[in-house]
Order: sequence, then structure tokens, then C-alpha cells
Amino acid sequence: MLKGNAVIGQSGGPTAAINATLAGVVRGLLEADCIGEIYGMRNGVEGLLDLRLINLREAICGEEALCLLSHTPAAALGSCRKKLPEVDGDDNEYRELFSILEEYDIRYFFYIGGNDSMDTVAKVSAYAQKVGYEMRVMGVPKTIDNDVMGTDHTPGYGSAAKFIATSMQEILRDCAVYTVPAVTVVEIMGRDAGWLTAAAALPRLHSDIAPDYVYLPERSFDMDRFFEDIEAALRRHPNVVVGVSEGLRFADGRYVGESAQSGVRDVFGHRYLSGTGRVVEQAVKEKFGCKTRTVELNILQRCAAHIASETDLAEADMVGRAAVEHAIAGETGKMMGFERTSNSPYAVKVIANDISAIANRIRAVPDEFINERGNDVTDECLRHIEPLILGEPKLEYVGGIPRHFSFK
Amino acid sequence: MLKGNAVIGQSGGPTAAINATLAGVVRGLLEADCIGEIYGMRNGVEGLLDLRLINLREAICGEEALCLLSHTPAAALGSCRKKLPEVDGDDNEYRELFSILEEYDIRYFFYIGGNDSMDTVAKVSAYAQKVGYEMRVMGVPKTIDNDVMGTDHTPGYGSAAKFIATSMQEILRDCAVYTVPAVTVVEIMGRDAGWLTAAAALPRLHSDIAPDYVYLPERSFDMDRFFEDIEAALRRHPNVVVGVSEGLRFADGRYVGESAQSGVRDVFGHRYLSGTGRVVEQAVKEKFGCKTRTVELNILQRCAAHIASETDLAEADMVGRAAVEHAIAGETGKMMGFERTSNSPYAVKVIANDISAIANRIRAVPDEFINERGNDVTDECLRHIEPLILGEPKLEYVGGIPRHFSFK
Repeated sequence: MLKGNAVIGQSGGPTAAINATLAGVVRGLLEADCIGEIYGMRNGVEGLLDLRLINLREAICGEEALCLLSHTPAAALGSCRKKLPEVDGDDNEYRELFSILEEYDIRYFFYIGGNDSMDTVAKVSAYAQKVGYEMRVMGVPKTIDNDVMGTDHTPGYGSAAKFIATSMQEILRDCAVYTVPAVTVVEIMGRDAGWLTAAAALPRLHSDIAPDYVYLPERSFDMDRFFEDIEAALRRHPNVVVGVSEGLRFADGRYVGESAQSGVRDVFGHRYLSGTGRVVEQAVKEKFGCKTRTVELNILQRCAAHIASETDLAEADMVGRAAVEHAIAGETGKMMGFERTSNSPYAVKVIANDISAIANRIRAVPDEFINERGNDVTDECLRHIEPLILGEPKLEYVGGIPRHFSFK
Repeated sequence: MLKGNAVIGQSGGPTAAINATLAGVVRGLLEADCIGEIYGMRNGVEGLLDLRLINLREAICGEEALCLLSHTPAAALGSCRKKLPEVDGDDNEYRELFSILEEYDIRYFFYIGGNDSMDTVAKVSAYAQKVGYEMRVMGVPKTIDNDVMGTDHTPGYGSAAKFIATSMQEILRDCAVYTVPAVTVVEIMGRDAGWLTAAAALPRLHSDIAPDYVYLPERSFDMDRFFEDIEAALRRHPNVVVGVSEGLRFADGRYVGESAQSGVRDVFGHRYLSGTGRVVEQAVKEKFGCKTRTVELNILQRCAAHIASETDLAEADMVGRAAVEHAIAGETGKMMGFERTSNSPYAVKVIANDISAIANRIRAVPDEFINERGNDVTDECLRHIEPLILGEPKLEYVGGIPRHFSFK
């Protein structure tokens, strides 16, 4: 059994469940005899390189603190968007990183993040093997986008989907009170995959009210067909509500929101998107002359821990613990994931996949989950998502708002 | 004791508590022997004029339905923004209205709404007196804005304030994960009064995290002073978060959001506001060149019943029941309200005020609740708001989202 110290990092966009995974990894490590110190990197590998480490055995005292951490949104350790260089290129940065790992006798390396973070895991793992440094490197997925390969779904998605479905039902009620024809456009995150936008249609399963359409980035957006949809909806009732993904593109590949954005790209080359909803709203206003409104769910959809999914939080913890077990059992260069063994009753088992097959690839909403016209998702899709949003966590409130955990 | 039928209407913008008041009025009426039929107007006085009435004894069956109604956001009966003409002018519309009231033998008239709706109550009451039609006309306030005169606070405000405080704490966590200097502007509703924006500072009372500043419409907005504030905040930490009211104006009276709006006004002459946050964000981006973001809480702040305040819902019900008691006791032309008899422990008693002294006036945040520089609220202000957001309702969830009530 490999003895040594462990380090944990969080990376990428915050979610309501990433701290539950941190708590799960810590819980797993606390139970393991072969683990010495447990360090947290502040702001991911960026903080590791700057030696900004925190001793988690001291900083998280007891189960009460772990429970509070699990119910706190965003990344308690901080995050980063650092992209490591190619393993076979100039290795100055890797040599610096590994001298730190060696100095601290780090033999277990856990990194919790989305697609871009799995790229970091793959590279750290590959470099360790290349230079013969014995270390178990495990990736634990999180992303509200649910677009990571090698897993049925990602921790963080269920909570975001629950917020979106709940908010959409509330927005629908709000929009239903007037009799004046109006079109409300709800803009939802998800640059490359429509899982979050699909969740906006969930009220349809049990409520008397549902959005008229949801438009996913898996289908090209056609303004003329969209106008036909809106016209038909306005004939049915005055209060039309549609969900649109921020990542919608026209057939020629241009983002719908592109006209309203700066063209700035992040370090991974992704464009910053914003404004898809407003572009669509403006087009409706000009075409139909009716009242219009855009609601951007914005960062609330990734940080609204007050309406987190208990299923999501429990799974986020489970996959964190499992990462520790797999690492201690000798695995490395793996990403933890879920395999859904049954949908009704819902059941999953934890799996570990080779990370090199997973990093930098996108898991889109499959064709059979999208209707023929490309303006809605199927009931089968909604029944696939529903188990992930079930259950409400028991939160501790102080002064009327949820109590949160924070370091120092 | 005046015998006859009753009618209830909802008007103005939706809230998370307006249906709890409807439930309260219905509960009160169901217990009264002198009440015959109980009608609901669909879409306020607009629906009454169109004879779109619903029999509430049949449509709301039992306590379970009333409880579900209380936990459902927005106006279940629908709303309107209709402004009645002056009582002493052309009275065609009033003659139509009163012939309907007489036909249905309506002797009790309850109207639940904000400032504009109290204008309707005042006029219906005045006209009834003018023509000698015996009817008890009672206004029950609701508005998330909390800006109605003659009451310590309004039902609907506590739930909106709880959503804003909770979301602000979550946004602050989300913004804290990166180390790159960034300014996040959170735009909050409240055209004329800063009560909602003040609530964004509530995390300061119990959390380790709070917005750097909140800017209320009670103070002129000065861009140079604002830049000084931001510069000072960026020196303290990289993640600056400010709350701004949609109703901010410059010293010359122009709305800060005016450059980003159409100039359209509603039937009450109020300008549609939108874009204050983006105008401020853009100014920060140009001045400091740092990363910026706007989060508009938008209509979620008035319809997020999933994070309603139990205190608010209980009071909304209480004031609805009390309106019935006061009406049966012979009062008319009154608006129900609260007098706070103690802040710690929090205690209120229900009061009834003459409506003519209340309608069309705004209750702003008092001077002593705003700091000297005009960029924050005092702790006293926060302790005044806090009791209103306490408690979480027990919601029924189905398929992972709250179950809602709806008519038909």
C-alpha cells in the first residue's frame, strides 16, 4: 500500500456540489491509514505552484464542518483556469510542480473539475509516469454542463437542473398572470451541450405548466423556423415562454449571441458567450411587436445551493470517497464516473475510466432525446434527468439565510 | 351585519406571497356566516368588467388546496395593470362596474395589490359612497418593493428579501473562487425605494462574506464617487461585488439605466427600467479594464416561492383574514397593514388605515438606515429587515420541484 501525503484541488467553474465532492475525498482520506497529511491547493494547480497549501486535517474539524462544507456552493478551496503545457514540450513548469510534490511527499493527487480540469489530470498523470514519480492521480468530475465523457452524468448537474426546473416553473407562473401577448426568453448555460436547457422542460412531467419550446445547441438555430414556432405558440396562448441555450449557433457555425459579444476567448480558446437570449428577444420584438423579456439565469444556476439536489450532493460525496478507494487500490490516471444500472428505480454504480480517453471531449445530448423539429426534448429525456434532481438537503439557516462553510 | 356575496381580485406585479393573502381572505370568508358566494375576478377589475368570475367555494376545495395555493408564486387569479378613471369624471366605466356588482349582489370587495392597486381600491370605495351602494371595500397590500405607506412592511417583501439575501451570499461565494480582479454588479428591483437592494447586504449580519456596497435609489448616483468606491474595494480584494437598484438616478434626475432603455412608460406613467446594472458594469470595464459581469435577479426575485419566508407567508395569510374581519365589522375604504410593536423579539399587530391617505404615495428607506456616503445601509436597517425573512415553509415536492396550485 503506497504511503504518503495527499493533495486535493478544485478547478473550473463553481457548482453547488463541488464542495460535497471535496468533503467526500476528505472523508475517504481521513479513513485511510496510508495517508499522512491532507493538503488543499488554493486555486488549483496555480496555488500548488505558488505553495499556497492548506492543511485540511486542521482546517476542516469534524463531521459538522464537513456537512456544512457539502452544503456550501462554489469551490471552497478556490478555483483556477490554468492550462498546463503539453507534456512532451518544454517541461520547466512540470519540473517546478513535481519538485513541490516531492518536497511535500505527495503520493495522492485528487483534482475535482470539468473537462478542462481533466486535461490537467491527464497531463499530471502522464508526466508522473514519464519521470517515474510514483503518485496516484485521480480526476473527479464536476460540471453543471453534464458534458463530460465516461460518466452517465456529472456531480453538479443535478443541482443546477433542479434550480433551472424550479425557476422555470416559477417564471411560467409569473408570466401567466397577464393577458397581454408576451414572449419571455430564458437564457440557460451550456456552451456545447444542451443538458441544462433540457432541464427547463422538466415541469412538463408533473405540472400544468411548461415552456413552449427549448432550443439546444445540439441543433442549428434557424430564425425563420423559430418565428414559425413563436407564431404558433402565440395563437395558443398569450404568455409564451421559451428556453434557449447560451451556446446556440446558426447553421453556418456563428453563435447566435455573437453579435452581442466581445469576441474575447478564455485560455482554453472558448469564446465568452452572453447575449443569446437578448438577440433572440430583440428578433421577436421586431418581428411580432409584442411585449418581450429576457431572463438570464446567469451564475445563479451554478451556485444556488439553497435548492441543491440531495441526490446530486450524495453522489458528489460518494464519487469523492470512491476516488480515494480506487487510488489506494493502486489505480492512477483515472476519472471517476457513474454508470446508470437502472432508471426506474434509479440506481448507479461508481466506475473509473482511463482519463486519456475522456479529456477534452464533449458528451452532447443524444439525438433520441431531441424532438424531430429540434425545438423540444422528449419525455424520455426528461425521465432520464428527473432522478438526478430528486430530494432536498436539510440546510442550516442563520438569520434567514443558509449557513456556509469557509476556510480561515 | 351586512349580508351578501364577496369578490376578490389580485393586481399589480406577482409576488411569492400574494396567493397566501388570497388564501387568507378565502379562509376568513369561509368562516363568516354573512357571506354568500365567494367570487374571484380573473385578472383583477379587468376580468370583473368582462364577467370573468370564478366561484372560489368550488374552485378551492379544502385546507390542502388552500395550503398549496399559499405556496404557489404569482397571482393565481391573474393580474392586471388597469387604471380606473377619476371618480368625478366620466363615469361610464364605473356604472358598468357597479351594475355588475349589483347584479351579483357583491357587498364585500377585496383587492390585493401594490400602490397602483390601492388607487383602484380608493376609487371603487369613493364611487360606492358617491352613489350610495352599500359595499365594504378593503385593500390588502402586497408588493416586493415594500414601498406602500401606512404599514411597517408589505407581504411579499420578506420572501423577495430572503431570495435576494440568499442569492447574494451564493453569488459572493461564486465570485470568490478566482484570483483575477473582477467586479460583479447585481441589479435588484425597486423603482422608487431601496428596500430590496438593502436586503442584498443582509449576509453581513451572520456570514463571513458580504457585498462591498449597495446603492439605493434614495441617494443620487455619482459616477466619480462610485469609481472611488470601486478603486478602494479593488485594493482590498480581487472579487468586488456591488448591489445596485434598477431605479438609480443621477443628481439631475435621469435614470442611470436610461441610456439602455426604450423610454416606454406603463399606463401609470412609470418608465420601464432595465439595464442599470449593465450601464454601471460597462462604466467599470472602461475605467478599470478589469473583468466585469452583471447579474440581473430579474423576475426570479418576485416569484421564487421555493425560498419564500415563512414569516412573510404567515403574515400574508393573517392580513388577508384580518381584512375580512374588519370588513364584516363595518369598515370600508381601508388598507390593512402592520404595526411593528417590537423588533426583538419581533412582534406585529394588524392595523387598518384610511386608504385615501395611502394611495399613490411612496414609502422610501429612511435616512437613518443609509450610511453617510450613500453606498451602504446601516446594521440597524439590516436588523429591521431580518425578522421578515426568517423561517422556511414546508413545501411539497413532486418530481424534484415544488408542487403548485392552479385554477381549472
